Amino acid sequence: MAETEAERRRPTIRAAELRRLLEDLIDEIRAADDWGVPAQYIPELAAVDPAQVGAAVILADGTEIVAGDADRPFSIQSVSKVFSLAAVLGRIGDDLWRRVGREPSGTRFDSIFLLEREGGRPRNPFINAGALVTTDALLSGREPQQALSELMGLIRWIADDDEIHIDGAVANSEKATGHRNLSLIHYLASCDNLQNPPELLFGTYVHQCAIEMSCRQLARAGRGLAGLPRAPRMVSPIRARRINALMMTCGHYDGSGEFAYRVGLPGKSGVGGGILAIAPGIASIALWSPGLDEYGNSRWGTWLADRIAQAAGWSAFA
Amino acid sequence: MAETEAERRRPTIRAAELRRLLEDLIDEIRAADDWGVPAQYIPELAAVDPAQVGAAVILADGTEIVAGDADRPFSIQSVSKVFSLAAVLGRIGDDLWRRVGREPSGTRFDSIFLLEREGGRPRNPFINAGALVTTDALLSGREPQQALSELMGLIRWIADDDEIHIDGAVANSEKATGHRNLSLIHYLASCDNLQNPPELLFGTYVHQCAIEMSCRQLARAGRGLAGLPRAPRMVSPIRARRINALMMTCGHYDGSGEFAYRVGLPGKSGVGGGILAIAPGIASIALWSPGLDEYGNSRWGTWLADRIAQAAGWSAFA
Amino acid sequence: MAETEAERRRPTIRAAELRRLLEDLIDEIRAADDWGVPAQYIPELAAVDPAQVGAAVILADGTEIVAGDADRPFSIQSVSKVFSLAAVLGRIGDDLWRRVGREPSGTRFDSIFLLEREGGRPRNPFINAGALVTTDALLSGREPQQALSELMGLIRWIADDDEIHIDGAVANSEKATGHRNLSLIHYLASCDNLQNPPELLFGTYVHQCAIEMSCRQLARAGRGLAGLPRAPRMVSPIRARRINALMMTCGHYDGSGEFAYRVGLPGKSGVGGGILAIAPGIASIALWSPGLDEYGNSRWGTWLADRIAQAAGWSAFA
Amino acid sequence: MAETEAERRRPTIRAAELRRLLEDLIDEIRAADDWGVPAQYIPELAAVDPAQVGAAVILADGTEIVAGDADRPFSIQSVSKVFSLAAVLGRIGDDLWRRVGREPSGTRFDSIFLLEREGGRPRNPFINAGALVTTDALLSGREPQQALSELMGLIRWIADDDEIHIDGAVANSEKATGHRNLSLIHYLASCDNLQNPPELLFGTYVHQCAIEMSCRQLARAGRGLAGLPRAPRMVSPIRARRINALMMTCGHYDGSGEFAYRVGLPGKSGVGGGILAIAPGIASIALWSPGLDEYGNSRWGTWLADRIAQAAGWSAFA
Repeated sequence: MAETEAERRRPTIRAAELRRLLEDLIDEIRAADDWGVPAQYIPELAAVDPAQVGAAVILADGTEIVAGDADRPFSIQSVSKVFSLAAVLGRIGDDLWRRVGREPSGTRFDSIFLLEREGGRPRNPFINAGALVTTDALLSGREPQQALSELMGLIRWIADDDEIHIDGAVANSEKATGHRNLSLIHYLASCDNLQNPPELLFGTYVHQCAIEMSCRQLARAGRGLAGLPRAPRMVSPIRARRINALMMTCGHYDGSGEFAYRVGLPGKSGVGGGILAIAPGIASIALWSPGLDEYGNSRWGTWLADRIAQAAGWSAFA
Repeated sequence: MAETEAERRRPTIRAAELRRLLEDLIDEIRAADDWGVPAQYIPELAAVDPAQVGAAVILADGTEIVAGDADRPFSIQSVSKVFSLAAVLGRIGDDLWRRVGREPSGTRFDSIFLLEREGGRPRNPFINAGALVTTDALLSGREPQQALSELMGLIRWIADDDEIHIDGAVANSEKATGHRNLSLIHYLASCDNLQNPPELLFGTYVHQCAIEMSCRQLARAGRGLAGLPRAPRMVSPIRARRINALMMTCGHYDGSGEFAYRVGLPGKSGVGGGILAIAPGIASIALWSPGLDEYGNSRWGTWLADRIAQAAGWSAFA
Repeated sequence: MAETEAERRRPTIRAAELRRLLEDLIDEIRAADDWGVPAQYIPELAAVDPAQVGAAVILADGTEIVAGDADRPFSIQSVSKVFSLAAVLGRIGDDLWRRVGREPSGTRFDSIFLLEREGGRPRNPFINAGALVTTDALLSGREPQQALSELMGLIRWIADDDEIHIDGAVANSEKATGHRNLSLIHYLASCDNLQNPPELLFGTYVHQCAIEMSCRQLARAGRGLAGLPRAPRMVSPIRARRINALMMTCGHYDGSGEFAYRVGLPGKSGVGGGILAIAPGIASIALWSPGLDEYGNSRWGTWLADRIAQAAGWSAFA
Repeated sequence: MAETEAERRRPTIRAAELRRLLEDLIDEIRAADDWGVPAQYIPELAAVDPAQVGAAVILADGTEIVAGDADRPFSIQSVSKVFSLAAVLGRIGDDLWRRVGREPSGTRFDSIFLLEREGGRPRNPFINAGALVTTDALLSGREPQQALSELMGLIRWIADDDEIHIDGAVANSEKATGHRNLSLIHYLASCDNLQNPPELLFGTYVHQCAIEMSCRQLARAGRGLAGLPRAPRMVSPIRARRINALMMTCGHYDGSGEFAYRVGLPGKSGVGGGILAIAPGIASIALWSPGLDEYGNSRWGTWLADRIAQAAGWSAFA
């Protein structure tokens, strides 16, 4: 007799198995001892020891399974775009979409080409130009400190952890080398798609990117997006699903299609080497290793996401 | 007590409710009497009466729910790319990916720009350039008639219907006006990414696009991609999931992100006004209405997909 | 008997005829009373009365022929790029070409697209990105005031006029609205093609663009480029010819080919409505009218250049 | 006392000096024995012995000065675009400009990108897309043989040589490998910018490109463009000047700005290694050596043009 839908969707893996899986995978990574290279364009990130890897998975029943360097904080960088997007959608709702689109870009994360072609309306909120518009909407005439406090408050709440903070050294390091982002900001301004002074937005943005979280904290923060029971939620279930959709189509820049194809789960990466992946209804997953691949996504993080999804039978697509 | 995963994923809608929903939605469309304009660049399609709309949904237990013009055949056009991709993956496996990528394109379906930028390797198998490479791999040195027979045999088998056929008039109509596709074909040839003579490939391609199916037939053909029990499958479950991933990120051309955001299901559209959408594990959905939106996707078909997914609570993302 | 080369190249128009020609053309423009619209993106320029037109031609024997508003100063804007280029070539020579190219861009004057495609090396010194690099080389670690003083000194010398000055109100107006240029500056910085702090370069650049000159002054300043006898020269004859070549291929942005085709002389335009055109060996020509055409070039200025060149038989091409 | 304009423009070189110059330069090239690589994409051209170099200069008084392999015929390839343009302007006049522009492209000779961006109107008649439109206008509903006969008749007339012919082997070789041009042709057709059947145009075009001429024949054919006395002319003097303008801004593809900058003369190159350069009013110059530089222009041909122009003091710009 064929399996029922209920049987089919039930996680095919138990917590104990999953724990062993994570440990085995991380042992495999450590044995390979081939860590790749961290992001080079932000000096503070370039200095991070690449020989680190962590994983955290939280299941629907609340079980937390961690392995490796799962409690070591790292710079979440672009993973923060998920939280600022959620915060802005909570704040101004769908008005955001008048200023930014919802389509994959087909170009690098910091590309300015499509911005020119489309008159200053960024393709989606996860490429840099779109994330800058999102943070601009978050700032919304307030002092940076006020907007950042609100964002940090929300993140601490969904992650159940008041220790989460911003690494000022990383923020300043990025500020000193952030000409590409300033170029995007001024381009947006020249197209009348900016509401705050360029310098204020830039300062807010680099601080948002410099949020430090561990895999465990990040996985907790993703529970709401995964629709796990009793999870604190920054947005309504329908908005959570839509953020997942954006993570699926745009979450890994120019490698988004590949992540969707191989891993089959919504995910968002950051150049700090972190990845937040969502198994809708089943699990929130956070992975971290600083070495990056050609698209600027964590090399071992992507590999872990792939292996975990395959082994556990987790996919958005069946 | 929180719902279990099994409860959560179970369709929240019963067959009778769904039937009523489809009928109500189609009544609403017919009452609006605002049908939009069919594709103009293929004369045979331009001549189709736009005042038609159909829907078919097949559930995991095999129940078929249809409404409107669900048994009227239409030209599936680019929806055929899903089937040719499945056939090629079954035939040559992952070797296909040496010739075509898996990333959203960020440009129109018939754009040649990215092809130039990336040296003749199309972005994905669902934009025209990539579909041409896929059909070229399907052809693979054989006579067009032989490759098309194999493809038609597979489609008839997964749709349980030997009546499905190719509309020669549409094929010839497209052949007479297909300069953009011929431009793409010769461009691919100039980059050594073509294995068959341009004219043979072009002929095969326009015939593949001219396959006629009804919503009911198309929904049946999608059961395997949806992972429904006992469905005939052209590819393994893991390949089916990956095709779903490509449909999610690339299935609606430059409107793929929007479809993922609003509808939340993998889908593939064609300029004939058809859409195949997949609720993984739950249902296969086919929709049709000839009037198109600005991206070349069925206007009422997209609307129906959105309304059905919301009402039924079907989403890949929770 | 066929004309000799000497006869052929001799101006086919006498000073008195030329004076009458200029006066007739300007009467024709004033009678048409259809002035077009000045540049809108710099408030101070947008406020200029469009109903103004002037022309000045200086012949090889030193004769100055002027008509219309030839002694009214206007903002030379991008015409200044010719002088900053000459000053930089005099200062650092061909080292400049390591940082900027010599090819037409095929895109708008403020486009950032090619800059991205070519890794931060602007196409030529007359589009904004390339002019910014040129001014950066002029600044070269000095105080803006010092670099501008040098440039003004050179311009006053070649124009025989110590009254030429910078309009601070225009500079400040441009500074307040110059986000597109700041975007280009930061983009250049992100590609390591900037030597000075962005704000210093920006300030220097807007002041350079805000130089005010009349047609008469501008025509005098062009005598060296025209190779007129006894003209003060900022650069050697061979460099002058090469600057002429750049004016021919790149001097009118996306309308350079058209100017070369119709007028047949090297020229450089500015959004203030000024044009400097060079009849090599024969005359230096300055034209001004604030209304612009679709490419951002002076509408009546272009018309005057065309009519004068045809009537006088002046062309670089025969 | 300052030189007069007449003195200034007079060739600063006598025929005997020029003859010695050409011979010395060609000796220098032969001594260097570093010939570069001919065009590889057309098999017949790839097979040409690269160790060949020729030069021919015709002065205003009719003196012909030749050196090296100046009487050996070579495939003129894109140099033919000058003659087809002249023929079409003579045939339909400025109507051509409704179908093709007059601006430099900023991209490679066979690029399709700008064609897409600008809706099928090629940038200028010297990139492949624009040359195809020009030949389409030349064909104009006639049989290819008829249009080619007319073109050959004109070329034989302006070159004073009835022996000039088309090399059928080169034409067929190009036809067998011309997918990029067929891609452009079908793209033009898809934009309704084609008047003849694709195959007819393609056949005509490859035959036009396969015209064989020696340097001497080519220099003779350029006398009219140079405005030399008593030269047979395909177009009026004003049209000749305008064709020179297009040669200056667009004649060397993506290296046009560089040729204008270094050599200072209008020129048109072909992948067969030929260059026609025009010293307006002074000389017609033809150069040939099969090895190409990175832009697809003759390496030694460009070098010769540069050295001759400098030594003789010939420039359009002073």
